[in-house]
Amino acid sequence: MKELEYLNIINKTLTDSSLIGDDCAYLEEFDLCITQDTLVEGVHFLLNTTDAFTLAQKSVNVNLSDLAAAGAKPLYITLSLSLPKNIDKNFVENFYKGVESAVSKYGIKVAGGDLTGADRVYISICAIGKKYNSVQVSRTNAKAGDIIALTGTHGSSAGGLKLLSQGKKEPEILIKKHLLPSAQVEKSKIIMQTAFDCNVKNIAMMDSSDGLGDALYKLSTGCGYLFDIDFDSIPVDEELKTAFPEEWKDLLMWGGEDFELVFCIDKSAFEKLDKTKFYKIGTVSDKPITKDIANVLNQEFENKIFKHF
Amino acid sequence: MKELEYLNIINKTLTDSSLIGDDCAYLEEFDLCITQDTLVEGVHFLLNTTDAFTLAQKSVNVNLSDLAAAGAKPLYITLSLSLPKNIDKNFVENFYKGVESAVSKYGIKVAGGDLTGADRVYISICAIGKKYNSVQVSRTNAKAGDIIALTGTHGSSAGGLKLLSQGKKEPEILIKKHLLPSAQVEKSKIIMQTAFDCNVKNIAMMDSSDGLGDALYKLSTGCGYLFDIDFDSIPVDEELKTAFPEEWKDLLMWGGEDFELVFCIDKSAFEKLDKTKFYKIGTVSDKPITKDIANVLNQEFENKIFKHF
Repeated sequence: MKELEYLNIINKTLTDSSLIGDDCAYLEEFDLCITQDTLVEGVHFLLNTTDAFTLAQKSVNVNLSDLAAAGAKPLYITLSLSLPKNIDKNFVENFYKGVESAVSKYGIKVAGGDLTGADRVYISICAIGKKYNSVQVSRTNAKAGDIIALTGTHGSSAGGLKLLSQGKKEPEILIKKHLLPSAQVEKSKIIMQTAFDCNVKNIAMMDSSDGLGDALYKLSTGCGYLFDIDFDSIPVDEELKTAFPEEWKDLLMWGGEDFELVFCIDKSAFEKLDKTKFYKIGTVSDKPITKDIANVLNQEFENKIFKHF
Repeated sequence: MKELEYLNIINKTLTDSSLIGDDCAYLEEFDLCITQDTLVEGVHFLLNTTDAFTLAQKSVNVNLSDLAAAGAKPLYITLSLSLPKNIDKNFVENFYKGVESAVSKYGIKVAGGDLTGADRVYISICAIGKKYNSVQVSRTNAKAGDIIALTGTHGSSAGGLKLLSQGKKEPEILIKKHLLPSAQVEKSKIIMQTAFDCNVKNIAMMDSSDGLGDALYKLSTGCGYLFDIDFDSIPVDEELKTAFPEEWKDLLMWGGEDFELVFCIDKSAFEKLDKTKFYKIGTVSDKPITKDIANVLNQEFENKIFKHF
């Protein structure tokens, strides 16, 4: 069963699924964004390639990345931790040290959660943030002429995962990008502020947790226009090219968990952004996605997409 | 490792753990309450004694019960569902029908979540609600002279669980109370409104998810006064006495998952409550819990407390 099938069931079954679809749900009444993400041992991580401190930091950052993608300042998290009975006391202590390290960086408060038993380690975090300003953010907001841009390199996390699965520990930069990703909290704030200052009312943005290709596909089909992408302008870590001379292009496009921001923004606002931190990779064309093109794209996408499930 | 040890580690490790301790965290800035609870296959439920629809309803109600205990009206949930690869499509459909059934009853919106793979079924729900009014609710708010009261019978859920584990399907009322508990959303609203109308500023309240004895222990040690409880006044389903003539008193006090409210409220407010729906079981004495008494209580409690972990 594919994730899309699940989403169809959910949309069909719930009377009101209007808040489902973006990285976060926006609770208009409170001007808050909310998101929940779960990491499962054996699916999202292995305990022999990470440690409790690192794992906690990643778990928090995965959720902060969703808030960043929604243009929201992180304020609170709740955390549910399920642990096997035989788990070491140090694991729990180091895990919470990792949580503290991740939340204290941004002044986020831990607002409860729970602890349960389980056969494996299972971490589910709910994060709440407040929109930086009135600029609307969604996956469907791109318009013809917008600049398509990224906050950083892609493929390195997937490269790191591949190295770990081969028992390798170098290049360290790739391993680190996989085990210890940083949510783009600061850059989200800058994008939102710049859009606001330029009187841009809407931007399209999401994070690249499921891969750059996935994000571009969703943003493009979300607005209904084809994207003109200059592949050579996509930033990439040299270490990825060196470690994976054959596969780096595939990892770059279809590897996941880089947790960078992928966004489409009016040219006027993009021009104000620091080009050493925000990378233009293309423009939104004025060619609509016809039904035929959509079918081809959908097929291609189904074949390539990085799947967690 | 005991839950208390975990909580000590958490409190020691996080710089700010001020929002941790009650059923919900209260986010003062937004007047919102937030809670997260997780149900794990093999720990909290077995797939051969429940079905997806029932399981979903229980999962939602477990969280709504925490909001009820905080005196908050439920508004939103996020839901993270982790499923084994081979799970039936009907399971997902019936699960979301159960979610819809539970949330539509109170006009709650599902504000996203995620779906992941896992080896077992894991359900983690975060629920957000808004305080009904300015009456402060916490586990530590009881004062000498307060009435100690309940919203319903206890022990039946634990009795139902015991019957299920013995392969029995009757008495149905006990089974149903275990598999399909209802959060006391309406009664929470009435308690909060009555307190407000009587100008009572603070009440002590929690739910009995971990057992009546656990709730009374926490409320008593929370305020520092001994409770005078009239055991015979605790409401109990006759079916529990009949099915468990030897054990019903133990199940009543130490069985968990009844998801009723246990509260201590000023006499003036209790008098206004409908006595056919709210049951007085005792009063908060003016005898402080001395260190010696605390030690004895603690030991007794440790021996009896129903443990999920």
